[in-house]
Amino acid sequence: MFEAYWRANGDSCTTVILGWEQMSYFASRKHFLWFVEQELENEIRQLHSLVGNAVTDGRFIVVGTGSTQLFQAALYAVSPRDGAQPASVVSAVPYYSSYPVLTDYLKSGIHKWAGDAANFHLADSSSSSSYIELVTSPNNPDGSMKHAVVQGSGPVIYDLAYYWPHYTPITAAAEHDMMLFTVSKCTGHAGSRIGWAIVKDAQVAQNMAKFIELNTIGVSHDSQLRAAQILKSISGRLFHFGYSEMSRRWDLLQQAVKVSDRFSLPEFSPAFCAFFGQVTSPHPAFAWLKCNRDSDCKEVLKLGGVLSRSGVQFGVGPDYVRISMLDREGNFETFIARLSDMAAASLASTAASYQEQML
Amino acid sequence: MFEAYWRANGDSCTTVILGWEQMSYFASRKHFLWFVEQELENEIRQLHSLVGNAVTDGRFIVVGTGSTQLFQAALYAVSPRDGAQPASVVSAVPYYSSYPVLTDYLKSGIHKWAGDAANFHLADSSSSSSYIELVTSPNNPDGSMKHAVVQGSGPVIYDLAYYWPHYTPITAAAEHDMMLFTVSKCTGHAGSRIGWAIVKDAQVAQNMAKFIELNTIGVSHDSQLRAAQILKSISGRLFHFGYSEMSRRWDLLQQAVKVSDRFSLPEFSPAFCAFFGQVTSPHPAFAWLKCNRDSDCKEVLKLGGVLSRSGVQFGVGPDYVRISMLDREGNFETFIARLSDMAAASLASTAASYQEQML
Repeated sequence: MFEAYWRANGDSCTTVILGWEQMSYFASRKHFLWFVEQELENEIRQLHSLVGNAVTDGRFIVVGTGSTQLFQAALYAVSPRDGAQPASVVSAVPYYSSYPVLTDYLKSGIHKWAGDAANFHLADSSSSSSYIELVTSPNNPDGSMKHAVVQGSGPVIYDLAYYWPHYTPITAAAEHDMMLFTVSKCTGHAGSRIGWAIVKDAQVAQNMAKFIELNTIGVSHDSQLRAAQILKSISGRLFHFGYSEMSRRWDLLQQAVKVSDRFSLPEFSPAFCAFFGQVTSPHPAFAWLKCNRDSDCKEVLKLGGVLSRSGVQFGVGPDYVRISMLDREGNFETFIARLSDMAAASLASTAASYQEQML
Repeated sequence: MFEAYWRANGDSCTTVILGWEQMSYFASRKHFLWFVEQELENEIRQLHSLVGNAVTDGRFIVVGTGSTQLFQAALYAVSPRDGAQPASVVSAVPYYSSYPVLTDYLKSGIHKWAGDAANFHLADSSSSSSYIELVTSPNNPDGSMKHAVVQGSGPVIYDLAYYWPHYTPITAAAEHDMMLFTVSKCTGHAGSRIGWAIVKDAQVAQNMAKFIELNTIGVSHDSQLRAAQILKSISGRLFHFGYSEMSRRWDLLQQAVKVSDRFSLPEFSPAFCAFFGQVTSPHPAFAWLKCNRDSDCKEVLKLGGVLSRSGVQFGVGPDYVRISMLDREGNFETFIARLSDMAAASLASTAASYQEQML
């Protein structure tokens, strides 16, 4: 979706790397965040100060190979080292479908997936009650604003990948202990694999750096250099472009859905956005679509030529699916056309079955 | 070490990335290696065909975020999924010091570090006898050529990071089932975090791709583009530069060591290098230094102003240390000067203690 913007406005962020530059593993030999390029760190702080979506003062910026790596680094950083039991990792449904597999693919003995945070109850014994809560806000898949729900004092990892003005009103600067962001959802540069965490506690930041050292010996310095250049070139214009584009796409989606009652979408409330200085509407990066009559929504959409991810993967029923709203324009138009057909076909078949009943 | 070469010869590998390029997660949507840039894959195959150090025909090229990630991907790929017991990961001493921690930092239930391969014996029960052997050749830390030693049919991961003509004679094209390489040890571009695996079996390559998808959702496309450009510019000249530079450095090291019997180095046999078409001598990337009189070699070197890694971390005694031979010229010269001082001081103190005995 952002490609059109960068084609029109990308002149200031061409990246040039000479053959003998960026050769070392190290950006700095003095700091425990030895792989973080100072220039990128500065641009990240500036960007948050421009947008007002997160507090960075007095906090560490841990750069990672996308927020996926940072998520795993954060889990590692707050999991008990000497615990007999792995920490229970929980997130309220519908949760991001990758959380269970990212937590468990190595059958780790320090953390294990434990499902819906709303159903998680701390055990009486403190030794077995260690947990980590994951909160994505705005939420992936459904776009709602989320908060921690477990009644406890365990660590909470906030994935704020979508907390940018094109997706949702910026109502306040977030100031949680651990917050994850990624270039891909801010500017569209997913291919660079650059994300960052804003971390309050020095020991947690140090543990995350250790994970990134073990996992990939730091983070591509070519990509860090490029990300710095891209973030530097961000002005309000990117978010205005993003907002109007998402607004147009959501209008098309809502028009397609409302021709029948076959599908429905979540409701979102407008709010005052401190960045735009006016009331704006949420425009999530995903359509969280409900099939009101069909039990297997993914299958229905597939028959209609639309690929989606089933609600089952997000911890809820197969009557929900998630569809990206950020695809290239051509793909998005195809999606809307096919969804419209399915919604209208449903109308025709309702009329047909009504007629049958009359006969 | 390679910086000087690229300053002089790097004009053809300046990387330019425009603002709207390399934005997608995907390089190809048709292949299970969806994140691998075709251009980089082609250059990797060409390079091996130029150097003759590995067979790539009919094999998969799995690109990763450095060979550290690929090592973890390979472990994941060949570890038993449904085994009650984690696979035992072994490597003959002295082994690369990172292997134990990379295997165990997440307390994985699919693989666990089990130490020296020479001491590993397969259990009688086949259910508990699953193992994975790691072979680094030329070896890190000691530069020797290694082979699998476990008498069994378990998977062997070959780390061939140093199997390039500047480090060792290329005696044959390696054709093991899993072979790891990295840009950093070939050209010096460690900061790009690009490595690759040459993999024979499709299922293993697919499992490795799955690991890289889960771990970092692919590999930086900026870095892949740059690595392709760097590999494309490689000619015989790089290896001639590397060989003569390593040769000069090893001569200096050997001169420094031989003034007394305080330190010693491994012996290496020259062999016919098919790439250079003549007999060449091994010049490993590390000095594997033995202290012949002091029990804590690392401490001795530290007092003399040289930082090193203790043999203990490589599975042997504290009388050994590993020191990089690839540092920048200034640091290398400092190392040689300090080592010479220590070797000569030892001579003086030997003379002094001899005199004392005479009194």
